[in-house]
Amino acid sequence: MRVLGIDPGLRNLGWGVIDVAGARLTHVANGICHSTPGEEEGDLALRLLSLHGQLTEVVARFAPDVAAVEHTFVNKDAVATLKLGQARGIALLVPAQAGIAVGEYAPNAVKKTVVGVGHAAKQQVDHMVRLHLPGVQIAGPDAADALAVAICHAHHVQSAGRLQAALRRAAG
Amino acid sequence: MRVLGIDPGLRNLGWGVIDVAGARLTHVANGICHSTPGEEEGDLALRLLSLHGQLTEVVARFAPDVAAVEHTFVNKDAVATLKLGQARGIALLVPAQAGIAVGEYAPNAVKKTVVGVGHAAKQQVDHMVRLHLPGVQIAGPDAADALAVAICHAHHVQSAGRLQAALRRAAG
Repeated sequence: MRVLGIDPGLRNLGWGVIDVAGARLTHVANGICHSTPGEEEGDLALRLLSLHGQLTEVVARFAPDVAAVEHTFVNKDAVATLKLGQARGIALLVPAQAGIAVGEYAPNAVKKTVVGVGHAAKQQVDHMVRLHLPGVQIAGPDAADALAVAICHAHHVQSAGRLQAALRRAAG
Repeated sequence: MRVLGIDPGLRNLGWGVIDVAGARLTHVANGICHSTPGEEEGDLALRLLSLHGQLTEVVARFAPDVAAVEHTFVNKDAVATLKLGQARGIALLVPAQAGIAVGEYAPNAVKKTVVGVGHAAKQQVDHMVRLHLPGVQIAGPDAADALAVAICHAHHVQSAGRLQAALRRAAG
């Protein structure tokens, strides 16, 4: 199973792709989609269009089976939250357009899965991502967060699968 | 010139299309794109996908020359603001995908243009939209707001055009 994790942001949208086979995780690719603020009117729409194009290319190139997006909304103020929401809308839309189911995880759930505690520091997450995916080259903090979301989703999808298998055995 | 106005929302996304010829405004169509919350996981991505599909159909059917989106971020809380942001991301993306420039207006700017004061009540906006577009049938409050955004954009684009023409005359 191939998993795409996304850490949405308007300026930097991190993405990470991993392969999952049983308990074994393999790094496939990671990167950051950028959109830089311009001066002209209508700029925001063009930035969202650019993010949409870049992320669509990632999905087409790596063909993930499932996707997950970090569900943050803690932010300085309403303006920052609205900006994040706009980028998040694109992050959720692109996999859905490709027919891929999209999970959502709160940052604490991601940390709890990847590090073991919900209040882990950013460096700890980065460290554990590197432990889970030996030899990985990470494009930046947003890409590390995206890989953490992918690892979290892989874990939850597998747990759900094991639970279903156990239930089937119990029923049969 | 044909103008598309959009009042974004995750549950109800209002849209309105008007034609502008000099000072004359004509109603073309208005409506509301709905997305209803479901139970399953991945629901939000499917709702955004549905809004994207509905709005893309509106743009394809009425072929506007320009578009404008209401820029609200006053909201009860961060969760509501994030939801609004996600719908707004789609509202900005769809015209941009069709190569249409997208303006943005704060609600107060819309009210100031349409009613004459920035702190006008919702009923006043509705009343003035009906005065500007005689005989119009309005699909609901969100569609009325979307028509108000379209009227506001028509006014601003025309003012900018007149200013440019005056500057050209002054320069020539």
